[in-house]
This record gives sequence, structure tokens and C-alpha cells, in this order.
Amino acid sequence: MASIEWFDDLAVGMKFRSAEVQVTEADIKRFAAEFDPQPMHLDEEAAGRSMLRGLSGSGWHLCSLMMRMMADGFITRAASLGSPGVDEVRWLSPLRPGDDLTLDVDVLEARASKSRPELGIVKFKCTARNAKGEALCEMTSPILIKRREGAA
Amino acid sequence: MASIEWFDDLAVGMKFRSAEVQVTEADIKRFAAEFDPQPMHLDEEAAGRSMLRGLSGSGWHLCSLMMRMMADGFITRAASLGSPGVDEVRWLSPLRPGDDLTLDVDVLEARASKSRPELGIVKFKCTARNAKGEALCEMTSPILIKRREGAA
Repeated sequence: MASIEWFDDLAVGMKFRSAEVQVTEADIKRFAAEFDPQPMHLDEEAAGRSMLRGLSGSGWHLCSLMMRMMADGFITRAASLGSPGVDEVRWLSPLRPGDDLTLDVDVLEARASKSRPELGIVKFKCTARNAKGEALCEMTSPILIKRREGAA
Repeated sequence: MASIEWFDDLAVGMKFRSAEVQVTEADIKRFAAEFDPQPMHLDEEAAGRSMLRGLSGSGWHLCSLMMRMMADGFITRAASLGSPGVDEVRWLSPLRPGDDLTLDVDVLEARASKSRPELGIVKFKCTARNAKGEALCEMTSPILIKRREGAA
């Protein structure tokens, strides 16, 4: 990804793509056992009878992997201060064992804070895709990012 | 929680409360190392300088714990078919090491599907609270739940 350090390095319309991350069946079952122990995420036979017709990862596992791809991509290098939440999460297609994921990130909005001149608020749209390019999950989220000193 | 097995057991206005779950510092750091390796979730010193003034858990860790409390509370007993997404997540106060969490669940909407008479769509509002009763996270999410046979 591009080198993003400060709010002032971001502009509406910028696009980034993460490095690839592979998800194994063991990863899916380990996450599910800890956080989302529904049969469709843990048991092949039950999963085969489910609406998704086969073992699938928890939607929260996918969101957490998207966070990791954001972090590796640039959030840990940028002066990120955290996020107040997520505007919308859409789980579009199932996460499958062996999927190679990438994250596409679009900068939808970027505005300096009026009340806190040392930071800006950037709204990102993040789309996780499998190796076929199918969108598995979309989410839109505002993130607070520090301004370069003297930029305000 | 009440015994919920089918869509037809749920009605608008119902409220549930989960059992308590404790989050340790080790849990927070383990989740962050895997999914959200930002200094505010991993390193006390950096966390002390952060906006949240002390080590805090990833918002995605909190969401995943909320899923677990939903699952333990009733989703794995109910005929849940999964969810298309989340309408909104708001992280309101930081998740701290040692927090004892409970989940308050409100049934906001419950409607039978017209196109798929074997299921209903229930919109839940979930609020995670610490032992002081402070709301740490709110989210609203639709979940697809099977109808009792012969109920449609």
C-alpha cells in the first residue's frame, strides 16, 4: 500500500489493496470455538445442511481479519487514534476454509475535525474478496487519524 | 435467558440478559496480536499515551465476545440460520482488562419472511455492559431464524 502516515496524506477517492491473507479450516474452527460456536462454523455435517451449504467462517472472524489487513496495510503506520464504530457491515458470501483474502479500501470521506484541530475523520469502505474476486464482506467505518504537525 | 427455539417464540419488546463473561489482559493481548496489532491494544506504555488512557481491547474483540454471549444465551439453542450483516456498531467506552461483561438484548423487530415462509427475520439490539453497568458497545443486527413447523 501507499505510505500513509497522517490524515493529511489521505484524500477522497484514494484506493488501497492489502496483501493476501490465507484462512485455514483450523483457523475457522478455532475462532468459532472461542467466539461463535454455531454448528455451521464448527461441524462439516451440520454445515452441509445449513443455508451456506458447507463449512463457513464466522462473520466476526472475517471482520477481525479485515481489521488485521487494515492494520498491516497502513493503520499501524498511520497515526490512527481509533474508531467510534462501524456504519454498516454486510456479509455477502461465505468465508471458506483455504480462502485467500485481500482487502480493497476506498477513502469515501476525509474531513478535519472542527472541535479537535489535531485530528481528522476519514470514512473508509472496506471490501474483503476471495481469490476469485468475489466480495465476501463490505463495511463502512470512520477512523480518527492525527494531522501532521502544523498542518491544521 | 428464556427458552427460545423458533422465530415464533420471539416478539417485539422481549428483553434478555446474558450470563457474565470476564475478559483478562492476556485475552486482550492475544486477540490484538492476531487481529488488531495497534499499540493501544498491546503495549501499556503506548496505551497510556493513547486517547483511551490505558490498555483497551480491540473493538472487534468486544464484538466477538458479544457474539459469544448471544450464542451462549440463546442463538445456538434457537434455530438460527445466520445473519446478512450488522446495521450499526457503536464503540462507546473502552473494554478494559478484568472487565466482567454482560449483554442486554432487545427484540426491536420480528417479521415473517414473505418469500421464504419457513423463516422469520428478527432485529436485535445488543448492548455490552461492564460491571458498573456502563455501555461499552451497542449494535443492531438482523438474524434469520427458522419458524416452528406448521406455524407459517
